[in-house]
Amino acid sequence: MTARPANAHQARLLRALRDSGPNSRAQLGDETELSRSKLAVEVDRLLETGLVVADGLAASRGGRRSHNIRLAPGLRFLGVDIGATSVDVAVTNAELEILGHLTHPMDVREGPVAVFEQVLNMVQKLRDSGVADGFDGAGIGVPGPVRFPEGVPVAPPIMPGWDGFPVREALSQELGCPVMVDNDVNLMAMGEQQAGVARSVRDFFCVKIGTGIGCGVVVGGVVHRGMTGSAGDIGHIQVDPEGRQCACGNRGCLEAHFSGAALARDAEAAAREDRSVELAGRLEAAGRLSAADVAAAAAAGDGVALDLIQEGGARTGQVIAGLVSFFNPGLVVIGGGVTGLGHHLLASIRTQVYRRSLPLATGNLPIVPAELGPAAGVTGAVRLISDHLFSPA
Amino acid sequence: MTARPANAHQARLLRALRDSGPNSRAQLGDETELSRSKLAVEVDRLLETGLVVADGLAASRGGRRSHNIRLAPGLRFLGVDIGATSVDVAVTNAELEILGHLTHPMDVREGPVAVFEQVLNMVQKLRDSGVADGFDGAGIGVPGPVRFPEGVPVAPPIMPGWDGFPVREALSQELGCPVMVDNDVNLMAMGEQQAGVARSVRDFFCVKIGTGIGCGVVVGGVVHRGMTGSAGDIGHIQVDPEGRQCACGNRGCLEAHFSGAALARDAEAAAREDRSVELAGRLEAAGRLSAADVAAAAAAGDGVALDLIQEGGARTGQVIAGLVSFFNPGLVVIGGGVTGLGHHLLASIRTQVYRRSLPLATGNLPIVPAELGPAAGVTGAVRLISDHLFSPA
Repeated sequence: MTARPANAHQARLLRALRDSGPNSRAQLGDETELSRSKLAVEVDRLLETGLVVADGLAASRGGRRSHNIRLAPGLRFLGVDIGATSVDVAVTNAELEILGHLTHPMDVREGPVAVFEQVLNMVQKLRDSGVADGFDGAGIGVPGPVRFPEGVPVAPPIMPGWDGFPVREALSQELGCPVMVDNDVNLMAMGEQQAGVARSVRDFFCVKIGTGIGCGVVVGGVVHRGMTGSAGDIGHIQVDPEGRQCACGNRGCLEAHFSGAALARDAEAAAREDRSVELAGRLEAAGRLSAADVAAAAAAGDGVALDLIQEGGARTGQVIAGLVSFFNPGLVVIGGGVTGLGHHLLASIRTQVYRRSLPLATGNLPIVPAELGPAAGVTGAVRLISDHLFSPA
Repeated sequence: MTARPANAHQARLLRALRDSGPNSRAQLGDETELSRSKLAVEVDRLLETGLVVADGLAASRGGRRSHNIRLAPGLRFLGVDIGATSVDVAVTNAELEILGHLTHPMDVREGPVAVFEQVLNMVQKLRDSGVADGFDGAGIGVPGPVRFPEGVPVAPPIMPGWDGFPVREALSQELGCPVMVDNDVNLMAMGEQQAGVARSVRDFFCVKIGTGIGCGVVVGGVVHRGMTGSAGDIGHIQVDPEGRQCACGNRGCLEAHFSGAALARDAEAAAREDRSVELAGRLEAAGRLSAADVAAAAAAGDGVALDLIQEGGARTGQVIAGLVSFFNPGLVVIGGGVTGLGHHLLASIRTQVYRRSLPLATGNLPIVPAELGPAAGVTGAVRLISDHLFSPA
């Protein structure tokens, strides 16, 4: 895809076609609030670029029947979501429908060279499966702060070896298409906004509880990245001045008290100290415990596992309550690997937020689980690059 | 002022004239990025409405010298800032320059009828002084949450009797002009953005520490009010799970530990328990203590007063650190009555934020005192109503 929209009208038309699918000219005019004549001009220009094509006859609205318009069916976007412990790669069409999706376990600490090799292998597999020849654009998320304009990770605490690595440049060269890079949590928020639980919500935040804890903030429908791209870095907000020592050097950070990593550590301690037969058995069988083991133990009725989840939810809820008071969102989304902990975690978070934030802010505030699971990140990634490509050049 | 701009171009021209003062057509064209012909048409239309007038010859840019354009000099806006313990009323021209400003001590708990009488008295005094006959618009701030579209206070904790009072309607009827109502803290942020320390900053927040504590949040140059208008209500964020009982029913709220009210209470306790000779002397002399007494005692070298300020600053800094991690602003402004505490308070806040927030977020983050003092609220109020009136009708 070499063509880009020439003006804001064309950009609006492309995004409307992306989000609502094939459409008649009349409906497109309604959606984009363009006059009939303006619409005709801009659609004709887009048809010339090949970005959109005519596609079947539209339903009649009384006059002569016209052709539906749709985005070129051959356009392909690539979404890559590098997590702390796994890599997701997906191919979509220009309407951001997933045509192929692969997941692979991978430790991000292996560094950019190894991870990139893995990503390119997965891309090749998807190509071989026939869903794409080449790509018109790609979005990629990494589990740490990103200098957004340059697409470069900055001092990422859980990503040794990635500091300053030119992710955007490197991937763009490999794929031969434009690439945008963002934080994995921002992409999760964009994914849930594009196709998940936050559809049509303009002010919300999305808390991702995985190995660490982060938050994607959306204001007026747009991801708020902040002055230096670090907005949403809530893992080191203090929950207890007398709390646990954190790896960052401070005391009482949320992540030191609750995250996938903290939970596994606490569960192993409980198992070793024989406080939970259930967890001890699982530790003996597997040699280590994960958040999933805690979830399974809780589901089996283990009291210690339940306590760990509830206490973690309360700590998280305490932080979210403060953010709700500050930001007064229309929705809070809870996602990430730890959401396998399910109902108990959500209940515990909700209790804290509804108790601690002002009634005016929580009166109509849904706190809901993310909907897309591992597809959220890759969906956010293709949304990111398509937002870029569907902007005036 | 019955005329309103007919379109977005005119609105941009009016705002440019408000913010930069009288200007040549050529400069206006540069600032608003309008083409020469478009500009000529829209300026002529604005001249017809009487909203702008020709004013002296502009400096030559080579061609024929043209007249400067300015906002009609007779336009008058009224700004009202109702605080917990005082009322400010000011009259400005359309460039938001203050032509007259009165302050009066007043307890907001006396209720809307008494407060409105006071406000109208002050307005009459300003009229009598000759700075205004009537008003083209008025903005008013109240110290509590506001349902913004309707201009009505909602369950304001420190404003008994004001819940649901139709502030906008009532003032509009008295003054015979359009009125907008907002939270006093939002207006303070807008004031500092219009004419104070936050000029040209697009993402910042402004913490007002007065009788209580609140925060005005600006995203992309626009006040972020949140889903129900309660964004920035940070006074009840928890700073210590085992902390003090708060009037709201929860434990460890920021306001329970630090605010003008909490500080006066702590100082009186210290005086009664003979922990501070300085404070005890002031209590005996005045019968009660205020934040200003603590400031004076600290300036006189009193250790207890200094400790109270530093501890309060640390609590506030702890909350701000969390918000900086979440929001990653370009500037944090500290204002309100308690800023009389001066350097010690700021230093203590800064220490906490720089220690607790991520380096990426604080690397270039100025934390600065507000600049406009009591003029911030009224300036924000006239900015609010002028933004409304200088929008397409």
